[in-house]
Amino acid sequence: MPLGQRAGDKSDSRYCGVEVLDFPAGDGLPAVLTHSLSSAFDFLLAPLVDPDYRPTPGTVLPVAASDLVLSPSQWSSHIVGKISEWIDLDSEDEQLRLDSELTLKQEIAWASHLSLQACVLPPPRRSSCANYARVVNNILQGLTNMQLWLRIPLEKSEPMDEDRDQSDIVDSWEWWNSFRLLCEHSSQLYVALDILSSLPSMNSLGRWFGEPVRAAILQTDAFLTNARGYPCLSKRHQTLLTGFFNHSVQAIISGRSNHNVSQVAEGVLSGAENHTADTPIRHTLSPYLDYIAYLYQRMDPLPEQERFEPLMDNLEAQTYETFEKDTVKYAQYQRAIAKALVDKVSDDEVSTTRTVLMVVGAGRGPLVRASLQAAEETGRKLKVYAVEKNPNAVITLHSLIKLEGWESMVTIISSDMRCWDAPEKADILVSELLGSFGDNELSPECLDGAQRFLKPDGISIPYSYTSFIQPVTASKLHNDIKAHKDIAHFETAYVVKLHRVARLAPPQPVFSFTHPNFPKATNQRYTKLQFKLPQDTGSCLVHGFAGYFDAVLYKDVHLGIEPNTCTPNMFSWFPIFFPLRKPIYIPSESPIEVHFWRCCGATKVWYEWAMMAPSPSPIHNSNGRSYWVGL
Amino acid sequence: MPLGQRAGDKSDSRYCGVEVLDFPAGDGLPAVLTHSLSSAFDFLLAPLVDPDYRPTPGTVLPVAASDLVLSPSQWSSHIVGKISEWIDLDSEDEQLRLDSELTLKQEIAWASHLSLQACVLPPPRRSSCANYARVVNNILQGLTNMQLWLRIPLEKSEPMDEDRDQSDIVDSWEWWNSFRLLCEHSSQLYVALDILSSLPSMNSLGRWFGEPVRAAILQTDAFLTNARGYPCLSKRHQTLLTGFFNHSVQAIISGRSNHNVSQVAEGVLSGAENHTADTPIRHTLSPYLDYIAYLYQRMDPLPEQERFEPLMDNLEAQTYETFEKDTVKYAQYQRAIAKALVDKVSDDEVSTTRTVLMVVGAGRGPLVRASLQAAEETGRKLKVYAVEKNPNAVITLHSLIKLEGWESMVTIISSDMRCWDAPEKADILVSELLGSFGDNELSPECLDGAQRFLKPDGISIPYSYTSFIQPVTASKLHNDIKAHKDIAHFETAYVVKLHRVARLAPPQPVFSFTHPNFPKATNQRYTKLQFKLPQDTGSCLVHGFAGYFDAVLYKDVHLGIEPNTCTPNMFSWFPIFFPLRKPIYIPSESPIEVHFWRCCGATKVWYEWAMMAPSPSPIHNSNGRSYWVGL
Repeated sequence: MPLGQRAGDKSDSRYCGVEVLDFPAGDGLPAVLTHSLSSAFDFLLAPLVDPDYRPTPGTVLPVAASDLVLSPSQWSSHIVGKISEWIDLDSEDEQLRLDSELTLKQEIAWASHLSLQACVLPPPRRSSCANYARVVNNILQGLTNMQLWLRIPLEKSEPMDEDRDQSDIVDSWEWWNSFRLLCEHSSQLYVALDILSSLPSMNSLGRWFGEPVRAAILQTDAFLTNARGYPCLSKRHQTLLTGFFNHSVQAIISGRSNHNVSQVAEGVLSGAENHTADTPIRHTLSPYLDYIAYLYQRMDPLPEQERFEPLMDNLEAQTYETFEKDTVKYAQYQRAIAKALVDKVSDDEVSTTRTVLMVVGAGRGPLVRASLQAAEETGRKLKVYAVEKNPNAVITLHSLIKLEGWESMVTIISSDMRCWDAPEKADILVSELLGSFGDNELSPECLDGAQRFLKPDGISIPYSYTSFIQPVTASKLHNDIKAHKDIAHFETAYVVKLHRVARLAPPQPVFSFTHPNFPKATNQRYTKLQFKLPQDTGSCLVHGFAGYFDAVLYKDVHLGIEPNTCTPNMFSWFPIFFPLRKPIYIPSESPIEVHFWRCCGATKVWYEWAMMAPSPSPIHNSNGRSYWVGL
Repeated sequence: MPLGQRAGDKSDSRYCGVEVLDFPAGDGLPAVLTHSLSSAFDFLLAPLVDPDYRPTPGTVLPVAASDLVLSPSQWSSHIVGKISEWIDLDSEDEQLRLDSELTLKQEIAWASHLSLQACVLPPPRRSSCANYARVVNNILQGLTNMQLWLRIPLEKSEPMDEDRDQSDIVDSWEWWNSFRLLCEHSSQLYVALDILSSLPSMNSLGRWFGEPVRAAILQTDAFLTNARGYPCLSKRHQTLLTGFFNHSVQAIISGRSNHNVSQVAEGVLSGAENHTADTPIRHTLSPYLDYIAYLYQRMDPLPEQERFEPLMDNLEAQTYETFEKDTVKYAQYQRAIAKALVDKVSDDEVSTTRTVLMVVGAGRGPLVRASLQAAEETGRKLKVYAVEKNPNAVITLHSLIKLEGWESMVTIISSDMRCWDAPEKADILVSELLGSFGDNELSPECLDGAQRFLKPDGISIPYSYTSFIQPVTASKLHNDIKAHKDIAHFETAYVVKLHRVARLAPPQPVFSFTHPNFPKATNQRYTKLQFKLPQDTGSCLVHGFAGYFDAVLYKDVHLGIEPNTCTPNMFSWFPIFFPLRKPIYIPSESPIEVHFWRCCGATKVWYEWAMMAPSPSPIHNSNGRSYWVGL
């Protein structure tokens, strides 16, 4: 039974599981499952094989339950397999290593036979997990559907190596990072995080939001007790768990109950004899589940623009209607135009002066409307030229003007702005040619062409725009791109909602353009940026850069999606993502240096980018070979 | 005219060029070329475009000479183009950057038009060379045949950045490394090293032997003066230059003459009027060329086994004959067998005891001969079983035995050793199943099978063997493998002569096997190795690991190719090379950690390997998917 109904949430975070600690010998598993499901848990994390088993030639694997005791759909929907925790593939003891390898392979083969969706691998035990990773990588090569979730404690850990200093504490993220690098970023390898009572810093935790975390295993020991004796979580734990819910991570409750609330109502599952069919015994962990469900239901509903995750390739089609309804955007344009009109025409001149305003790329008319509203609001007289090259949009524009009775104020020019010979020069040039990265849809080139209609003292709205980037961990995006198996997809920027992403450092400005561009200067750009990660982040992996823009429409009126200054409730633009062909490991406290170029050729404009520190990457998209915009 | 005739040397190191310092305006280039060739230089490093040129719209490129003043073959055989040295692609001055980009592209286009084999790019001037690398990478994408040689000073350098500390000194190898990483290890990008009077440490210099160095540009300032007033080089310079000659690097002499030896014989090229056709004026740099030629001719001739560089794929065919002639190898076997016979049979028992010796894999009989010679040498009586599965070899073996009259001592068994049912057990088991990496041709598995014929106190020759690896820079091997454009070739080990390779740290043992293997233990192995590079090496790039073996045949008689202990004058084995899919950058003084596995399946044996430090690589050859030996 899902944690609750949250409008728009289709993710796995609605489901909550429970870990089975004791091996359900005999045919105990169906009873445990029935009891847990009836207590509103959605699935079990359950051992599949007797933990006392060690491989012996000729013996049958002592499994928890034959495949017949549960139906195939029960196995696949309600059981996540738990691999035996004694396995220790990086032990110095060769026999233990070999036994562990054999058992791990046997258990995974059994789980595959049961068609489980996932198995949880026990946490690495040693400072080095190379042999463990090697065996798991071997298994992953042959696995068709099942996922493997590597269990990782969410705090610094002390490996159990015999020969290690006591002071040698491992950042558990490093275990995960080594493991997945050794396994070539396998798309079937995930993380299950054990949440304990102490938590590392928020910057350190934040890294996990860009990693493929499937489950947060909440230990009962991590819970506090509220005034009424019920379990609850610290503020920091609550924030973390909400963060995980927002990143499609599901909770699993684990451990012995420390909160024996209301014995009467609850009972204990001991033998299961002392209850009737009418009054099922409550699960000992139900109070924890209740609290998790409460946290889940307390979350804000998802805003409408968050409810769909567009595919990378057909974003425009899906968001076409959305763009037209972005009232916030046009309100900002109206404010900017109003300010420009007031600056152009003083109150004394209102009756004698008519301002000439050109909308280049008028589309179906939203900027024409904003301009006329600004004129009305400020009491300025306006003559509008609406230039549009799409003949279908021009038809709509004609109807609109007739309908609104704007014929005397608006002249429609059905032409490409590059070919039009304007009969007079404009005081104000208004356009909306910005892409997610500002200049990425050729706004600079288009406006450089259009500025020949602008008076020397004319105003361009937007006046300027700047792109921004920030380094991110984005394991899912990386794997989506890798699935194409070519370099070209790693040299392409994607306009995409950034969902499972860790933002590692504040965004920094990349390229700026100002209009009008008198005398015309080059639109080529070259910028070097250095990012310093917060000290307490630890090491991390960078899969690429998230890009944004901010535009100054006029004076203090701006518009943009740069996270720190973004215009609220505007949804015309998603961020852009510039991937790296090979994710780059950033040692703790190492600065990241990246270079971005905007290149202009005779027929196209493109970006190139390269990491320089901590180590140089190849130049991406050399000569615009993979990704460009045609002039 | 080549530097000299050196038996077996077919490499470019025979040729020596001279750098033209002054721009040969007008049609001066043919005269300079004629003079240099008649002075025994082989080619010119010459500027192609007037160094005072800056791009101006509408002007014709002021080239040194039209393409008609030299024949096409003269251009391509005798001229290496020198790109203008003023270009500065990483300047803070945007106009200088843009002018530099345009000029560089124009000059390379001109050089391509002339069909030059190579152009030398001026050294990077700044601590960061990202924009320079980006433009060169752009050019490389469109270049079909011409090579680009990046000029790099062979010493620590001070970049000319305005805003840098004076103390910021760059290891020039870092420039090269960043440049080639940014250019994706382009196979058309090479290095030309400027050799100056001071040299860094030998460990630091040694890195270059694994890099694609095409030319050593010897500055006249690097020369000393000998007692007779002639130019000569310091011992360290001589060693370096000899090293370069051995790695197919050609010399270019550059600079003004500091040794005005014997004015009368030499003259000076000034106007070229004061000489007749019969007495050509000597080139001012001839004394330097004479010295270089002297160094070249003084080198030892190449040993016979060095004279051919086998292709990776058909090594066996080319070296088949060679193996049979490896007398050193069989002499070592004979010594080992003799010692074993003496240990088995005391002098008192000589007349009463006959030792049973089995040769498993007898081939055409070299080990049979070695065994009988050992018996004769020690006066021991011997009964030999020669087991061979190749029926063609068995025919040769029969003839040999008849020819030598060994019928009474030798029994030929035409059978696979795995099927043979021996009539008696052996005292000594002799085999030669070792590969370049020791166990890589299944010697452990074969001998585990054959030991069932061996008495419990029997002796196996070889008694044990150990594989070794060391990290190497091997840019050429990396590019050869990359040309296949797949992962499988990067997960395959190659038996190959290691020619252009820098050995970064002493070899360390990997896997050891001992025979007989009573009671039979697993032949799976797992070894972690840590390499520490000498402190003064600086940073470097590791392309993979060179592998070797050493075998103890019996007691103190060993046989092997591990460089520090290798058996002299033996040529049956080349080293083996384990590549890395992605070369790994090793920061100065960082340890290298690598893990090697020997894995045994039901039908095959294979290796897996992975780097763990400084950063984890993927596991190579998971499940033996790319490279294995069938059982």
